Amino acid sequence: MIGLFDSGVGGLTVVRALLKSAPQADFVYLGDTARTPYGNKTQETVERYAAEDARYVIKHGAQLVIVACNTASALALPKLQEAFPAVPFIGVVKPAAKAAVEIAKRRVGVIGTRATVNSGIYDKVIHKYGEKLEVLQQACPLFVPLVEEGMVEDQITKIMIRRYLTPLRQANVEALILGCTHYPFLQPAIQRFMGKKVHVIDSASVVIKQAMEEYPQLFTAKETLSQHIAFTDTSPLLDRLATKWLGRPVKAEHASLSS
Amino acid sequence: MIGLFDSGVGGLTVVRALLKSAPQADFVYLGDTARTPYGNKTQETVERYAAEDARYVIKHGAQLVIVACNTASALALPKLQEAFPAVPFIGVVKPAAKAAVEIAKRRVGVIGTRATVNSGIYDKVIHKYGEKLEVLQQACPLFVPLVEEGMVEDQITKIMIRRYLTPLRQANVEALILGCTHYPFLQPAIQRFMGKKVHVIDSASVVIKQAMEEYPQLFTAKETLSQHIAFTDTSPLLDRLATKWLGRPVKAEHASLSS
Repeated sequence: MIGLFDSGVGGLTVVRALLKSAPQADFVYLGDTARTPYGNKTQETVERYAAEDARYVIKHGAQLVIVACNTASALALPKLQEAFPAVPFIGVVKPAAKAAVEIAKRRVGVIGTRATVNSGIYDKVIHKYGEKLEVLQQACPLFVPLVEEGMVEDQITKIMIRRYLTPLRQANVEALILGCTHYPFLQPAIQRFMGKKVHVIDSASVVIKQAMEEYPQLFTAKETLSQHIAFTDTSPLLDRLATKWLGRPVKAEHASLSS
Repeated sequence: MIGLFDSGVGGLTVVRALLKSAPQADFVYLGDTARTPYGNKTQETVERYAAEDARYVIKHGAQLVIVACNTASALALPKLQEAFPAVPFIGVVKPAAKAAVEIAKRRVGVIGTRATVNSGIYDKVIHKYGEKLEVLQQACPLFVPLVEEGMVEDQITKIMIRRYLTPLRQANVEALILGCTHYPFLQPAIQRFMGKKVHVIDSASVVIKQAMEEYPQLFTAKETLSQHIAFTDTSPLLDRLATKWLGRPVKAEHASLSS
């Protein structure tokens, strides 16, 4: 059983990548919709929330936890490893950083929430694997509400893409990491703005690729299929959003968290 | 001692109105920044959060609680009155609805978060005082992130004002209720778009007016001044925002809530 959690619905892009590569894998996904978003909150608060989220998926049988949230991956991974030493954790930051290092020779762009960008984690991890690379980061705080409003091809979104990404385009970054699980929905518009030569790296896909390489046994079909989606705040609106994003009917279970 | 709470920093507009009318009043303000925003969450979750917020300000001496959050006022007021029968609660909905009824003869517009608008509370309360009035509601989910990004006079904000408010302008509403404590920051831009004839009602100001009429003794100067601002998630960024909004130095205390 694979556990995944996110601050809300955004991490369903990771579930989507999982279902694409391993449709028969058992998983439990928790979206902390009652406290979403994490992206403007502090490290201490994000650490506490992430630990509660992880406890939930582990209690529900997770043998591996994929932190399907860039903010939690950026701010809380060491605390999580420490709090739950028996279960391996994979965050979205390292796989995306490695993918960028394989592609870029000079410059990498990273976009994310304010908390992710301020943590400096992408800068640190990219330099660990490619010390000569220049890393340009940009916080894009309006992208999450725009995606959640379904405005992915809206005029407003195009203006904000231009405003946030112009410095990265002008700097000729060779790879651009989408450092927030909501951002894959904007990938077509971002790719158009950045141009065909820029490799846009979707952290949702690369984290699933790494997890499958490291723990292949967890991604195989079992006799019975066990796939669960739970939210800390449930509503028909969220179910409709999840159904649309995953392309299959979703009726989320209600999760109560304990600290 | 007056207690005020909000889902986050938005309710500071009510504190601003309080300080303008009664600069020497004792108050404790709680902003639930660790779980903000409430506007897209369900009634059950908002009721639970509001009760925890109210308990905090009552524990810190509040003899009157001003629910400085439209979403909590719309969804949780009956539960709050029931849970804390010894303390009076004043929400922002009723004072704003009454102000609109005094002004409008035919049509009132209401803008707010999705939760506030879906609750239908403004429609219900306005019809209680002015049964013949037509009420037009519009959810404006992007206004809160735009205000929190400080983009109050931005091109994007103007486009969104036009998009959200055109139906209300075309319907010739005579009064427009700003049914979210973040929206007073957009008041100049909204007033320009709606035109001079439309009375824009800021729920922050009217709730303080009503509270002062009903409980004047709480708004007088005491021998010692006791004014506290607490957040469930504190950071220098939030302090800077609060300082800017209130026009005085703010260093918020950290609040831990119990249920």
